[in-house]
Amino acid sequence: MGVMRFLALFILLFSVLIFQAAEARIRRYKWEVKYEYKSPDCFQKMVITINGQSPGPTILAEEGDTVIVELTNGLLTENVAIHWHGIRQIGTPWFDGTEGVTQCPILPGETFTYEYKVDRPGTYLYHAHYGMQREAGLYGSIRVSVARGKTEPFSYDYDRSIILSDWYHNTTYEQVLGLSSIPFDWIGEPQSLLIQGKGRYNCSLVSSPYVCNATSPQCSPYVLTVVPGKTYRLRVSSLTSLSALSFQIEGHNMTVVEADGHFVEPFVIKNLFIYSGETYSVLVKADQDPSRNYWVTTNVVSRNNTVTPPGLAIFNYYPNHPKKSPPTVPPAGPLWNDVEPRINQSRAIKAHHDYVVPPPLTSDRVILMLNTQNEINGYRRWSVNNVSFNLPHTPYLIALKENISGVFDPTPAPDYFDLENYDIYTKPNNSNATSSNSIYRLKFNTTVDIILQNANTMVVNNSETHPWHLHGHDFWVLGYGEGTFNMSSDPRKYNLINPIMKNTAPVHPYGWTALRFRSNNPGAWAFHCHIESHFYMGMGVVFEEGVERVGKLPSSIMGCGKSKGLGGRP
Amino acid sequence: MGVMRFLALFILLFSVLIFQAAEARIRRYKWEVKYEYKSPDCFQKMVITINGQSPGPTILAEEGDTVIVELTNGLLTENVAIHWHGIRQIGTPWFDGTEGVTQCPILPGETFTYEYKVDRPGTYLYHAHYGMQREAGLYGSIRVSVARGKTEPFSYDYDRSIILSDWYHNTTYEQVLGLSSIPFDWIGEPQSLLIQGKGRYNCSLVSSPYVCNATSPQCSPYVLTVVPGKTYRLRVSSLTSLSALSFQIEGHNMTVVEADGHFVEPFVIKNLFIYSGETYSVLVKADQDPSRNYWVTTNVVSRNNTVTPPGLAIFNYYPNHPKKSPPTVPPAGPLWNDVEPRINQSRAIKAHHDYVVPPPLTSDRVILMLNTQNEINGYRRWSVNNVSFNLPHTPYLIALKENISGVFDPTPAPDYFDLENYDIYTKPNNSNATSSNSIYRLKFNTTVDIILQNANTMVVNNSETHPWHLHGHDFWVLGYGEGTFNMSSDPRKYNLINPIMKNTAPVHPYGWTALRFRSNNPGAWAFHCHIESHFYMGMGVVFEEGVERVGKLPSSIMGCGKSKGLGGRP
Repeated sequence: MGVMRFLALFILLFSVLIFQAAEARIRRYKWEVKYEYKSPDCFQKMVITINGQSPGPTILAEEGDTVIVELTNGLLTENVAIHWHGIRQIGTPWFDGTEGVTQCPILPGETFTYEYKVDRPGTYLYHAHYGMQREAGLYGSIRVSVARGKTEPFSYDYDRSIILSDWYHNTTYEQVLGLSSIPFDWIGEPQSLLIQGKGRYNCSLVSSPYVCNATSPQCSPYVLTVVPGKTYRLRVSSLTSLSALSFQIEGHNMTVVEADGHFVEPFVIKNLFIYSGETYSVLVKADQDPSRNYWVTTNVVSRNNTVTPPGLAIFNYYPNHPKKSPPTVPPAGPLWNDVEPRINQSRAIKAHHDYVVPPPLTSDRVILMLNTQNEINGYRRWSVNNVSFNLPHTPYLIALKENISGVFDPTPAPDYFDLENYDIYTKPNNSNATSSNSIYRLKFNTTVDIILQNANTMVVNNSETHPWHLHGHDFWVLGYGEGTFNMSSDPRKYNLINPIMKNTAPVHPYGWTALRFRSNNPGAWAFHCHIESHFYMGMGVVFEEGVERVGKLPSSIMGCGKSKGLGGRP
Repeated sequence: MGVMRFLALFILLFSVLIFQAAEARIRRYKWEVKYEYKSPDCFQKMVITINGQSPGPTILAEEGDTVIVELTNGLLTENVAIHWHGIRQIGTPWFDGTEGVTQCPILPGETFTYEYKVDRPGTYLYHAHYGMQREAGLYGSIRVSVARGKTEPFSYDYDRSIILSDWYHNTTYEQVLGLSSIPFDWIGEPQSLLIQGKGRYNCSLVSSPYVCNATSPQCSPYVLTVVPGKTYRLRVSSLTSLSALSFQIEGHNMTVVEADGHFVEPFVIKNLFIYSGETYSVLVKADQDPSRNYWVTTNVVSRNNTVTPPGLAIFNYYPNHPKKSPPTVPPAGPLWNDVEPRINQSRAIKAHHDYVVPPPLTSDRVILMLNTQNEINGYRRWSVNNVSFNLPHTPYLIALKENISGVFDPTPAPDYFDLENYDIYTKPNNSNATSSNSIYRLKFNTTVDIILQNANTMVVNNSETHPWHLHGHDFWVLGYGEGTFNMSSDPRKYNLINPIMKNTAPVHPYGWTALRFRSNNPGAWAFHCHIESHFYMGMGVVFEEGVERVGKLPSSIMGCGKSKGLGGRP
């Protein structure tokens, strides 16, 4: 090897070293939240935007980077808070963005700075976590790529993100008022499904004073342009307010390779079932007849929804015109009440064999959570073990860390429900249901099992799918079952070999889901059904763990309720 | 006089003394603010209510009483603040309820306690003073009766309160978004006029998805039942968001006896012109044919409004049926653009000869305020001397008292505009207009004159009526004039003999209004056009006076912006 060649190699290596040292970068964003009129499904509505966009800007970062978002609340009279869904906030539990749990709301005109490390590659989300503002359009994607030099257990040519959501024409104010009315006034099914913020409502159904413009570019279908023969990684996530969805690309198989930031032992599907709060990466090869375009469709499942039309986008083979409709009828979705393929998919998701994180084989504590609907003081509510959750107006994290008493009921939330004497197939008659803001206090660094047990709602012969999302952690998904969980026999069926880790998992109608996690992230963390109205109606809990290990809270998160005097002068 | 009779007299006198000692009472109210669906004009809309009502509960008190309102914000994501309109808040400037000036907004779930003395009898109001929430229905009456033993210079048999307002079917959110859009997107004229919260929209104009129920009891006309021969004191006030109004009772004269808490030298009118923020008491004798009912009507004046139908109520002679329509067509209102009778009424309002508060004969400072509409950075705004007002997010009172810098521009707001070289009859071309949050700092205990000078708007041949409201004070109304104010000749025409004191006075189209007040109430006080959208668009200023004399601020008003660390722990 000549000297010059050696020198060149040396320079190259040196550059790589420098580059890697500089690798953990800061990704800084300045966002302003405000209302704008948008027509995501052709129907004009006031939408909460970030820098004028809904979905908001995508956060692009690399494993190990620090993300800084300076968020200015440009609303006139409303506060705001944003949650970074799937980011565990290790060491920064105060920046989880969950109003009432980890921070006070951000007032109009104020700027709040979120700063956290994205310590793992994967597909994540962000969205409002205050009132029901997520549903007003305040959400977006976080895409964290693997650190330079590391690899993923699959390959692809291009990387694309798609968020699925459902969309109401009524305001969240109207919906909330109905949810908190006696009698209960349900808003009904959403008017449309959006694929990456674009849907299509039938404007001919709209009465005169509304603006619905079928030719608005805002509601032209989302187009995914592909080069024939190339492989695409699609990061598909759902932030529906209500709907469970099926997603498919006409004529194309999808290989599931990632779920909630964890690599999946690849498996092939025709359609992907996806629940609010979940993220998946699927690989799609553009291997079909390239002379035409194909439909991308999403359909509602799990609810007998005859109202919401399927969401449609276009899988556009280059160089066909991106607006050219496929020559076919969009494929129909699965039967809404066919639960089996959904459970099967849930069960099929296992950790990639090279990336298994072995779960602890035993747990220190088992918390059973019976999910029911109830009437409490005339209000329709959701409950866990007959307790319907209310958020306090002083965030738990502040109350716990600063020892402020009187913020929440110190009685422990219940670990148990007498399942043996509960018929999950009948309408609840649990007239002793109550509301509370009590929480679960977990011993630090222990192993906790959660058994989510589904049941009948207040409607005869009805049980819904609830995607439960855990903040601050991933859990191992140990199993899914049908019927009433059996404490002695069902744990023996747990997958302790290669369970996937996730932050959101569904409990299927009349079924159960078993989760395990380590209480190793000091803070106060929400765990709740990700359906926006269900959490509002009480379907959630809060875990505290190791709060004495939490560092000094930033004063920026304080200032509300009993933390009023504590917010430091900025 | 026998012993027994003497004893009886003694006991009577003693009782009176005890009663008077106990006279200054506490009037305590517990209010919860929340959304409800209401149909004030038959059209169903989300309304911000107090304890389920809009207008909210009437505060009834006696001169010298202390009013305590414990206000709980029951909204989900919106803050709130309530202003006590006409109450000077002597010694309690922190309870004026003006967000951004005297307090931080009240967060959802929090309870804020207002406590203030009603030191003068009269007719006052309360309403939201945050964003444009007043327009969403958050308002009501304050009626302060004279102290026991004192008399009023007129007599009547019954006392009734009526608030007039205008009503939009769009939400304030939609209106605000339009006001802050480029191009400016004006909401147009209100859909109806409400008399004591009741109006009537023509439901046949309503498209299907809206709820409009012409038979709803919520929109049955307001009925004022009178006993023939009796005299009624009607306390008529206006909280319109936009409209200047004329108010009349078919076939009945009205005698004006009070304005904004001050006794008026009585004068008789057929119709009362009333502007947003004003209150009047008129005496009406039920002296007409008692066999029928009569119309109470209110009409828009000063705007070429062909959209909003007159507001109608029923003046019901007992024992006629209260719902029996009068046999006549409701009387037409005055011509919208006939300014003269409006100026004449303004000029006719003088202090009652037994209650004249003589004004200082000279002033220490004259502040000229040219009112114009402007385009600033593409936004449609209102300005005073070419400066359009923006509220800061830290209240002035806190910034001033606690010496927090960087909250507002310390450059003094301008006292002067070169009127001699300004043509008030042309569309403004004042391209050097700016936005600012600068304020007027007044020397304590001095006499300040304000000359409000009206001008043409951005629309050719158009000048609007602006009712200016001063917080924390009453001013003497020294005069109203037409055309451009002449600094040398017009002050000679001031009424320094018996000017009325008020807290709200109009400046008429292309006219001027001269006001005088004493800067004798330590605090920070807003002075602004009471049209909700105009204040939002910058038509206001703030006065500081004697802030060093303000007592210790309650921590409850703090916690926002740069006062974040200052709010004491409750």
